[in-house]
Amino acid sequence: MVKAAPYAQHVAQIEAVLAAWGMPGEAARETAQILGYADLHGIDSHGMSMLPPYDVWRREGRLNLAVEPRIIKQTPISALIDGGGGLGHVPAAFAMRTAIEKAAVSGIGVVVVRNTSHFGACGYYGRMATDEGLIGMVATSASGVRVAPTFGAQARLGTDPWCFAAPGEAGRPFLLDMATTTVAYGRVRNKANEGLPVPDGWVLDAQGRPSIDPLDVADRGGFLTSLGGTPENSSHKGYGLAMMVNILTAGLAAESYPSEPGHARGERLGLAHFCLAMDPELFREGEAFEASVAGFCRDMRATVRADAAQPVLIPGDRERAIAVQRLAEGVPVGSGLRSQIEALAAQAGAPWLME
Amino acid sequence: MVKAAPYAQHVAQIEAVLAAWGMPGEAARETAQILGYADLHGIDSHGMSMLPPYDVWRREGRLNLAVEPRIIKQTPISALIDGGGGLGHVPAAFAMRTAIEKAAVSGIGVVVVRNTSHFGACGYYGRMATDEGLIGMVATSASGVRVAPTFGAQARLGTDPWCFAAPGEAGRPFLLDMATTTVAYGRVRNKANEGLPVPDGWVLDAQGRPSIDPLDVADRGGFLTSLGGTPENSSHKGYGLAMMVNILTAGLAAESYPSEPGHARGERLGLAHFCLAMDPELFREGEAFEASVAGFCRDMRATVRADAAQPVLIPGDRERAIAVQRLAEGVPVGSGLRSQIEALAAQAGAPWLME
Repeated sequence: MVKAAPYAQHVAQIEAVLAAWGMPGEAARETAQILGYADLHGIDSHGMSMLPPYDVWRREGRLNLAVEPRIIKQTPISALIDGGGGLGHVPAAFAMRTAIEKAAVSGIGVVVVRNTSHFGACGYYGRMATDEGLIGMVATSASGVRVAPTFGAQARLGTDPWCFAAPGEAGRPFLLDMATTTVAYGRVRNKANEGLPVPDGWVLDAQGRPSIDPLDVADRGGFLTSLGGTPENSSHKGYGLAMMVNILTAGLAAESYPSEPGHARGERLGLAHFCLAMDPELFREGEAFEASVAGFCRDMRATVRADAAQPVLIPGDRERAIAVQRLAEGVPVGSGLRSQIEALAAQAGAPWLME
Repeated sequence: MVKAAPYAQHVAQIEAVLAAWGMPGEAARETAQILGYADLHGIDSHGMSMLPPYDVWRREGRLNLAVEPRIIKQTPISALIDGGGGLGHVPAAFAMRTAIEKAAVSGIGVVVVRNTSHFGACGYYGRMATDEGLIGMVATSASGVRVAPTFGAQARLGTDPWCFAAPGEAGRPFLLDMATTTVAYGRVRNKANEGLPVPDGWVLDAQGRPSIDPLDVADRGGFLTSLGGTPENSSHKGYGLAMMVNILTAGLAAESYPSEPGHARGERLGLAHFCLAMDPELFREGEAFEASVAGFCRDMRATVRADAAQPVLIPGDRERAIAVQRLAEGVPVGSGLRSQIEALAAQAGAPWLME
């Protein structure tokens, strides 16, 4: 059964668990806020549901919860940050703040984080840039490896997300936050749970052949596809974007690529993030850029609809609509996750706040 | 019938036509080289075959062939360039050279071109960056508008290409150059010419419904799809990338978006380009980044194959293989295009060099 808790309570519960694990107060607060942002915006795969896998990493001794990120190399327009081997949220937020500060002075800031791990939803950091009137780009490498490249029959890539964000209408930025796969694994798992086939183009079997059986991925060593789905429908483009994400993260940070055998399997998770902030006033005056993006978004929303009941949306619209609803009605948590979190909290000695 | 001319002759023929149209010598030479690069690499849609549409624009008085691009605003890490209302090749190459020069001093350079038009294949400019050991990003807005956004039944976007390039093994950079549509229009037209259906996901009919009839696009007002193909297969991602491309180009350059009614229909073509060059030594030492990208590419090529006869490729591999073949055997030009170019040359008083 799904129960909904008020947003503040939801975030407080995440924070309480992180603090009980030994994460310092300010870090626990920021990490909880970033995970809560994902849940609030309907990106449920990147919020509270990550606490159980984080707990596994923690118990394996692969998460240093007490470190502070530090700059190990910088120029007026760039910084390389060591994440200290902990969760990625605090280092990534620090990275985007650093990129924003550099962009305020120089027009652009590019910051790479090494020695880090999962950081929640990319869009949070993109949104930090647009809140300051800046364009943002964000990417991260991923720990899970279950995507075969085009023409391949071997897992070589992760979901490898890319975010591009641009300020437009106040409070409604352009916010593209996308996995470079056709769909996330969670959607395949949902079909398997319902006993339904998946649409053409979502998955490959273990021999790299197109399949509509979700169990080929869930149980039999198959793969997710890159965006495009099949060679005929240009999966080489999604595959190329996934490589781009890994080059900008693992490549610039000197961390491992998902194609390497020990990727994210060693004592360190060894993931990497990329954050870029750019001031549109390098090219345009005052608020002209924001007005132009806002107009473009309005035009797109006003597109003639294929189905009168289904509006044309802008990247970010769907998530914002969910956030409005969840702020009013609470953040829903299914009974399965709920009991997992309750057990985690009890085990860690954290208060249970979600009754 | 397809005849192949030696590469140098092919480029010389393009240059002769451009010069006869009144383009100054150095500009004609560089434009021909960039168009020839596309043909050499098998990107036939962006090479010599563009001369007939360029001729239409020229006759309409919408191409200023004699201008030189000039910087109208700059900082140590950025420049805004006025393309002068001509073809985009010379301004875009100037823009990437400017970005490279700024990256050599400051670590990064971002250059936007306004008042420009078609510039050939994005990958040429990305390759300029990797030739200097830099990461490149390139995008351009497009004149043709025949893509409906996800859930839409109205043409609002172009093929809106994105290029990401990174230096790796010498002479074999990572070079992703992709339209953000599932396929280019040319591939739909080819199916129509053969009387064949198109695969699911390539096109929509004029009501925005999925179709497998290429004539729905060619003759009946239908649309190309964004990468992903259908809402179920995440076409909102390709659509989001197309908006990203337009925001980085039209948005930063203060040119029109493809969703605006008069886009590319007025006295000026009014397209825009975006070029970014970034030095990986901001983050890594010496050649470590190149070595890391080269290793990643090698790993991907060594992926277990789904079909033993079909190797796993890296973005750029296919085009490089074609270039090797065409350098040896000549650049093929079909009889239809050949006679069009022959007529153009005669009309302009340019020598015919392709016998």
